Amino acid sequence: MHPHPTAPESPGRPICVLGLGLIGGSLVRAAAGAGRAVWAATASEATAGAARAAGYDVAPGTDQALARAAEVDALVVLAMPLPAVAGVLVRVNELAPRARLTDVVSVKAAMRDLVARHAPDTRYVGGHPMAGTAASGWVAGSATLFAGANWVLGSDDEVDTEVWADVAELAWACGARVVPAGVEEHDAAVARISHLPHLLAAVLAAVAAGDPRARGVLGTGPNLGELPMALAAGSFADGTRVAGTRPELVLAMCEGNRSALLAAVDDALGRLGAARGALASTGGLAATVHAGHAARQRWQAAKDAPAVRVPRDSKPATLRDHGRRGEVLIGWSELG
Amino acid sequence: MHPHPTAPESPGRPICVLGLGLIGGSLVRAAAGAGRAVWAATASEATAGAARAAGYDVAPGTDQALARAAEVDALVVLAMPLPAVAGVLVRVNELAPRARLTDVVSVKAAMRDLVARHAPDTRYVGGHPMAGTAASGWVAGSATLFAGANWVLGSDDEVDTEVWADVAELAWACGARVVPAGVEEHDAAVARISHLPHLLAAVLAAVAAGDPRARGVLGTGPNLGELPMALAAGSFADGTRVAGTRPELVLAMCEGNRSALLAAVDDALGRLGAARGALASTGGLAATVHAGHAARQRWQAAKDAPAVRVPRDSKPATLRDHGRRGEVLIGWSELG
Repeated sequence: MHPHPTAPESPGRPICVLGLGLIGGSLVRAAAGAGRAVWAATASEATAGAARAAGYDVAPGTDQALARAAEVDALVVLAMPLPAVAGVLVRVNELAPRARLTDVVSVKAAMRDLVARHAPDTRYVGGHPMAGTAASGWVAGSATLFAGANWVLGSDDEVDTEVWADVAELAWACGARVVPAGVEEHDAAVARISHLPHLLAAVLAAVAAGDPRARGVLGTGPNLGELPMALAAGSFADGTRVAGTRPELVLAMCEGNRSALLAAVDDALGRLGAARGALASTGGLAATVHAGHAARQRWQAAKDAPAVRVPRDSKPATLRDHGRRGEVLIGWSELG
Repeated sequence: MHPHPTAPESPGRPICVLGLGLIGGSLVRAAAGAGRAVWAATASEATAGAARAAGYDVAPGTDQALARAAEVDALVVLAMPLPAVAGVLVRVNELAPRARLTDVVSVKAAMRDLVARHAPDTRYVGGHPMAGTAASGWVAGSATLFAGANWVLGSDDEVDTEVWADVAELAWACGARVVPAGVEEHDAAVARISHLPHLLAAVLAAVAAGDPRARGVLGTGPNLGELPMALAAGSFADGTRVAGTRPELVLAMCEGNRSALLAAVDDALGRLGAARGALASTGGLAATVHAGHAARQRWQAAKDAPAVRVPRDSKPATLRDHGRRGEVLIGWSELG
């Protein structure tokens, strides 16, 4: 049944993964590789077949997977796009109403609200592993997708610290580092470092590919034809890479983070407008370009974030402070 | 004198390269590797020493390099940033006033105007090899930098077709493909596929790194601290890569292409503003995201651009049509 190499089953909590796309599929592989008892469900028969053929345990359906989770008090992981979450939560509420529950969706306030509405008795701790963008689907998954990645855990004051520890231990078992953050903080941050990049990539690709004369932008300017696409290389290729992501995934995450993304877009519009004004008036872009260069360097310095261990009984406020300082958690500082 | 491997000297025109940064340094290596007689000059004593130590022919100064070019009717290549060009053109006008002249600067209308002002009797054909961005300097150069790259050649009606052929043959000797374009077409295209990407990368980096509360953007929103920089990965890393380029290089090319860049920025502002409006009103970003996805796919299809050969006596208008169709030139269709 298990042709892939697995460690002996470890004593960690069993894992039930609903959804076998890039993230869910990678999570099943990584958790199995770490020796966890793990089973999954997927709406795709083809994916279920592929995962079973690779030796993984795929339940006949979501209901069966959830019933088994309720029996053994497993940690249930929602690993589907945001628009599909509500329907699954209804099943969770019926079959495992007190489940230990987490998710891998890239927006956290919307998830919190959905859980409160559809499965209010679950013990929910939001999660967001920061891994994978352009590729998608079971076949793109890998047991090492999370190795060295940051995995955000919702850490507001009311969080269930026992389930928080379950999710942290799952993240660590997958090789990830834990970043604690309040739900609103998380959404504001990812709007700026993930959702805005997707939006700017789309805008950049369209500006470069578009026929400017047809839209009157260049007035009586030259007819560029295919010239821009023929010349586009390095900076265009990098700046538009994530525009290659499946649009429905981009829409789910961007539209699901509407208010935080609006603030980020307004910031970008303000800065781009200021650059436009400076270019038109003095011709100078120094303020814009130097600010961008300094910010990029600050990010590169942040890659050496301190890795720390925390007591298992840390309070959420203390955990959030670690995240705000740019620290990543790699384990418990004492035996749990 | 020449510890590096070189082909036997080929009969192509001798090359005089002024400037030994990333592009000039790579050009010297590539031209020497292709067996061309090539010598250089640089304002940096340290760079001159490094290039000589690697076996390349570096003249004592720009004047000596130019005097030698005038003697043998070499092709002179200006390989310095735009702000340094005027000073060098004054020397060209004095020492090699009828020189065959090209350049590797990323803006072409500004270059044409500088040449007309400072060295009006030279036989100038603008060039722009589309290679290399973030790294810079002699040490970053490579003989293979241009392999497979596109090299734009200014191809307006008044171009000197004999010098055009010299530059095309240099580009082909370096392994590049030639893309003919009018000067205004070139500048409009690179504003969209190179200069705008640099500006958007700077804006994105600053938005992500900035403290939104300090600027009042989020009002009473959460204090994010170092959280965004700690979480930034894939889409941020790609979208801001060129923000790591030396600011003075970015400023030289963006500010040197002011009017074309303004049109591109206005297009981007319009599209980002439309996305903002849609997000705020209906919450939907489908139009923006789908347009970006389609544009990115169009670019990927354009990578299979037809490679064609052209008669050596092609008219500039015919050459420009090839560029507008997204075709790249790889050689002459008959013996020259």
